[in-house]
Amino acid sequence: MLADRSCVVEHAALTVAADDATAFEEALQRGFEVLARADGFCWAQALHQVEDPTTYVLLIGWDSVEAHTEGFVRSDLFGLWRAEIGPYLTARAIVTHHVLGPTVGGAR
Amino acid sequence: MLADRSCVVEHAALTVAADDATAFEEALQRGFEVLARADGFCWAQALHQVEDPTTYVLLIGWDSVEAHTEGFVRSDLFGLWRAEIGPYLTARAIVTHHVLGPTVGGAR
Repeated sequence: MLADRSCVVEHAALTVAADDATAFEEALQRGFEVLARADGFCWAQALHQVEDPTTYVLLIGWDSVEAHTEGFVRSDLFGLWRAEIGPYLTARAIVTHHVLGPTVGGAR
Repeated sequence: MLADRSCVVEHAALTVAADDATAFEEALQRGFEVLARADGFCWAQALHQVEDPTTYVLLIGWDSVEAHTEGFVRSDLFGLWRAEIGPYLTARAIVTHHVLGPTVGGAR
């Protein structure tokens, strides 16, 4: 569960070409390994929409909003991340940040 | 992490009145306890947007899309769930379903 660790959650809605999903997910896994090297990174999880397979939601945990918007975005890692996933995006990513709210259940 | 258990993820974008956030989160916690009684329910996690505090994203894990759209929605529990959160919604919920994609990191 996201609540395993109390991080701010970046929510990024992305669109890719319909025939690029497999290659995009391979690039995304490489990109996530870049994110994992960033200060203040907690975890990252991609969600692939069933109703519209050209749409992905990336959920990325950070220690704070600033760890993403000031630390990561201004670091050399940002260019490496964008180089992996940028070529697949067919629209500008829609990015917001969220704090964890109520939760129930989970795997344990 | 969401990937702790392989479930389909319902993604519901909700809007509430700015001064209702506290009461809504109390109702949401009660609502989640209703969801937890549904067949095929895995877990639920609310996210509260920082940039626009009237916006919430609910991430709800189900064993399948049908567990949500056919099982839960047609069950008596659905009315109990809607009774808890419905009064707080200022717009129609935008609901999609997602399968888990690439992931990295996490609390362990």
